[in-house]
Amino acid sequence: MSDHTREELISALLFSLDNLDTGLYNRDFLLTWENSTDAIEGVLDAAESIRLMMEGGISTRVFDTGLAISLFRDQSTRTRFAYASAASLLGLSLSELDEKKTQIAHGETVRETANMISFAAESIGIRDDMYLGEGDAFMREVSEALDEGYQEGVLPNRPAVINLQSDIDHPTQSLSDLLHLRKTFGSLENLKGKKIAVTWAYSPSYGKPLSVPQGLIGLLPRYGMDVVLAHPEGYDLLPDVVKQAGDFAEESGGSFTQVASMEEAFANADIVYPKSWAPYQVMEQRTAYLRGGDSDKLDALEQECLAKNAQFKNWECTADLMKGTKDGEALYMHCLPADISGVSCEQGEVSAEVFEKYRLKTYHEASYKPYVIAAMMMLCRFEKPADILRSLLKENKPRRGF
Amino acid sequence: MSDHTREELISALLFSLDNLDTGLYNRDFLLTWENSTDAIEGVLDAAESIRLMMEGGISTRVFDTGLAISLFRDQSTRTRFAYASAASLLGLSLSELDEKKTQIAHGETVRETANMISFAAESIGIRDDMYLGEGDAFMREVSEALDEGYQEGVLPNRPAVINLQSDIDHPTQSLSDLLHLRKTFGSLENLKGKKIAVTWAYSPSYGKPLSVPQGLIGLLPRYGMDVVLAHPEGYDLLPDVVKQAGDFAEESGGSFTQVASMEEAFANADIVYPKSWAPYQVMEQRTAYLRGGDSDKLDALEQECLAKNAQFKNWECTADLMKGTKDGEALYMHCLPADISGVSCEQGEVSAEVFEKYRLKTYHEASYKPYVIAAMMMLCRFEKPADILRSLLKENKPRRGF
Amino acid sequence: MSDHTREELISALLFSLDNLDTGLYNRDFLLTWENSTDAIEGVLDAAESIRLMMEGGISTRVFDTGLAISLFRDQSTRTRFAYASAASLLGLSLSELDEKKTQIAHGETVRETANMISFAAESIGIRDDMYLGEGDAFMREVSEALDEGYQEGVLPNRPAVINLQSDIDHPTQSLSDLLHLRKTFGSLENLKGKKIAVTWAYSPSYGKPLSVPQGLIGLLPRYGMDVVLAHPEGYDLLPDVVKQAGDFAEESGGSFTQVASMEEAFANADIVYPKSWAPYQVMEQRTAYLRGGDSDKLDALEQECLAKNAQFKNWECTADLMKGTKDGEALYMHCLPADISGVSCEQGEVSAEVFEKYRLKTYHEASYKPYVIAAMMMLCRFEKPADILRSLLKENKPRRGF
Repeated sequence: MSDHTREELISALLFSLDNLDTGLYNRDFLLTWENSTDAIEGVLDAAESIRLMMEGGISTRVFDTGLAISLFRDQSTRTRFAYASAASLLGLSLSELDEKKTQIAHGETVRETANMISFAAESIGIRDDMYLGEGDAFMREVSEALDEGYQEGVLPNRPAVINLQSDIDHPTQSLSDLLHLRKTFGSLENLKGKKIAVTWAYSPSYGKPLSVPQGLIGLLPRYGMDVVLAHPEGYDLLPDVVKQAGDFAEESGGSFTQVASMEEAFANADIVYPKSWAPYQVMEQRTAYLRGGDSDKLDALEQECLAKNAQFKNWECTADLMKGTKDGEALYMHCLPADISGVSCEQGEVSAEVFEKYRLKTYHEASYKPYVIAAMMMLCRFEKPADILRSLLKENKPRRGF
Repeated sequence: MSDHTREELISALLFSLDNLDTGLYNRDFLLTWENSTDAIEGVLDAAESIRLMMEGGISTRVFDTGLAISLFRDQSTRTRFAYASAASLLGLSLSELDEKKTQIAHGETVRETANMISFAAESIGIRDDMYLGEGDAFMREVSEALDEGYQEGVLPNRPAVINLQSDIDHPTQSLSDLLHLRKTFGSLENLKGKKIAVTWAYSPSYGKPLSVPQGLIGLLPRYGMDVVLAHPEGYDLLPDVVKQAGDFAEESGGSFTQVASMEEAFANADIVYPKSWAPYQVMEQRTAYLRGGDSDKLDALEQECLAKNAQFKNWECTADLMKGTKDGEALYMHCLPADISGVSCEQGEVSAEVFEKYRLKTYHEASYKPYVIAAMMMLCRFEKPADILRSLLKENKPRRGF
Repeated sequence: MSDHTREELISALLFSLDNLDTGLYNRDFLLTWENSTDAIEGVLDAAESIRLMMEGGISTRVFDTGLAISLFRDQSTRTRFAYASAASLLGLSLSELDEKKTQIAHGETVRETANMISFAAESIGIRDDMYLGEGDAFMREVSEALDEGYQEGVLPNRPAVINLQSDIDHPTQSLSDLLHLRKTFGSLENLKGKKIAVTWAYSPSYGKPLSVPQGLIGLLPRYGMDVVLAHPEGYDLLPDVVKQAGDFAEESGGSFTQVASMEEAFANADIVYPKSWAPYQVMEQRTAYLRGGDSDKLDALEQECLAKNAQFKNWECTADLMKGTKDGEALYMHCLPADISGVSCEQGEVSAEVFEKYRLKTYHEASYKPYVIAAMMMLCRFEKPADILRSLLKENKPRRGF
């Protein structure tokens, strides 16, 4: 891409961003469905602008000093590095809050800690997806503490809480997915009428979070897509999110339907997203046992679930199944890492043949996450992010060298 | 605050700093009482200048590259983030030295390691407060190794060792407290004749460090305050520090007295600082057992101490006790986190009612720590810190955005 | 040193660098012997330039944003801080990849992870020295994954993989050693005909990596030195590296010989480098047992090796042995930390007397490592590193203050 073309593309994105009312300034990014479509489109525009500048070697350092804090209550490599990359691209120093204790803190402890770590903070990224009913609630507790601290003059700035995966939603993932779709199909408008199959798939592991499929069905119906959800009996997602998906479909003129097999979901689909998750009822029970410290019951529950899981080994995304999709060429998507049959496990979510065909596309899909996070930081922390990005473009400072 | 007012305030602070002979350049900050009052006032002036610039959105980045190293031999969240914030505000990259082994290293190991980590370092913050007789000694060993390395041309710069809490003193805490007092009462001069009650308080935990109360009695008598120390029998502080407190009181025309009850200490006090700690004799015994790896004796000692502790549950800062203070409105202070009765524990150092009344004030008290640490870094690392800060003010580079 | 002298020295180094064809741009630095002497001299020239600028207070920040990733599969303090220092000196944010699991990942896991962490990365430093046959192979797997990711547009830049110690070579150490020798003897040319004794030495520990002695014999014979290797029977180094050492000696007109005693090796030596290591056959067996998870056999192997080790306690670098070296004044070298008899262990690699005499020289030897790493980063990541360094020199921006 020539520098001139890049500059024109970025200018067009910033012109779009100018005209959006995102409502994100001095706020957080916790759930896509509580945000306006302007907010979502704003994140995509800013993310793509930052990505193009990075690609073009233009510095996007908008902070001279300051912290980007992260708190991972679940192991993470990909999201950790996406967050670290976003922090670095904007000029923030990463500081990880390491909770040694697994106990779930509330009240004054959260309120006080949130303030004590935030004197120089611009963002607090939190992953807390293991306990149903906990993650999103915890993020809101942190958010309220920061509101108070800022209003009372304890904090010089109001850092943005960014949901890096909660029990309910995974917005940095779903917006990376949406940006991938926008780039693949040319525009958000072009997604209208496209069919996407969001389906459960078999994995030998246990207890994968619900936030990825919920993030998808809570987001994509807003764009007039035909979203089809499929999973074995008993693998339900949270009822509230399912309801939200239906409401969005109705508003947008798209559709949200549930079917009972992968085959049916894949039929003539433009996009497929097969992915393992645990039933929400199991996650609820698990949270209760964890709270009670009931390790015998936890073990029994895990055994029960793995046995149940094993009944659905045929929920695998194979080349045969892919033949039933639109022209046999649906776009395969995955948040990574996928459980690939014969590669990362004996039998898993996707056959080696299908995965290898789309492998680099899934890498591209993942590559947008650092920019989505950086965009959320910018939209939450700056009143006029388009102006800031335009200044960066005009200054044209090299990111590396001279 | 208007930009103009802020600029005038900072200029006045820097004018004050100009006229102080801190003696800190190319040295460390280990104990307040081995430093001059000029050094202490210099830290406060620089800290408040940096804080005001941060508040006004002015960049305080004085390092283009370089490391701020930290070594925490005890768990820490608040001080860790205060140090990380200070490093970021000045432009240093944080690098944490993680000692896997609990053994206490000495000699060539310390000497060599101190040099090997410091080739690009500007500061080394150390928390080592668990073993009486060890922490301060360790810091001095590191300091001597750095002196040699710098003199012999091994190190291009002489990083400053900053005491982030030792067995003896906790200067970043006590100077944050002092800055809080200076801002609350208007000036250091106004502290003359004010009565502060530094008292033990009950906590269900065991072995809290002595460095917080010692830091207070070793500092505040220098300012003509009436410092009253109270604790149950057997909860003595280090005799050397107690003696130092008396000497300072005599020099300044203030007073240092010890009483036997919280009630007496609180009587007509302007400020109260109730806080749990372990007796120094117990800490000494504990260190001996730890060195000997004598875990049975350690357990027995802990049980004995907890039993003794439990005799003094009535040492709690309650609303009733607060009534006895000056106009019933003494300033309550705490280094956080406090053990709050009915909130963070069944019964603790302070009642929920008292804590809630002063909660935000304790947050403000804590908010100065990042700036105190940054100020120590600047005074130890720059010959003319006021000139550097004045240049920052003049350059007026935005900390965020453009 | 005057600023003028420093500037002239740096200019001369950059003039030398201009005329070298290092071939490192967009590549990795894994083994010295697969790189040209131009590449090696280029690293030394760039390292010394960066060091002189650091010493002179000139900023070497060439990256405005971006990550320097590290992955330590073995504990490390010295190299960790050398890498952190290099990252900071060039302006990169350090991000450590923390592998919880000890299992050795391959295939899609490596390929995917390498890409997922690298969207904003400029370098990936890897230490993987514990398992013979694994470390170098792993680094090449990462390297190939990065090649693919960059070619396919997944990655905006191709980060450089930098070997921070593999099972085969330890180039950041051996090039620091070489820079120490160049500075001590005046030039690489002056090393011609100098005798260096690379010898095994007794240590009470077990399983020290082979990469240090291999790094030395694989590098120094290229400079016409007389390299003498000595170790007890059964402590062989990898045959391929030994062969390479002989080939280089032949090409350069130097020599590579093996003798059976420390005494013989030290005879009239200009330099001695006594250091413990484990036999490669043992390391191979160990790797096989580790792969098989055979902990009983691992324990037995360790006992056997320690017993064998104990037969060679007389392989200690003593003052008496040093008398046999050139004028009794050979340069003693060590990669640190050394096992010092009566200091860090009862009996070890070197007597306290000899070590203390050369202690500060070993600190200086180690002090070049951060600059060697920074130089590798610059040569691998910039097409014209001399131009970049010349711009830094000309810009003359203070690294600290104003």
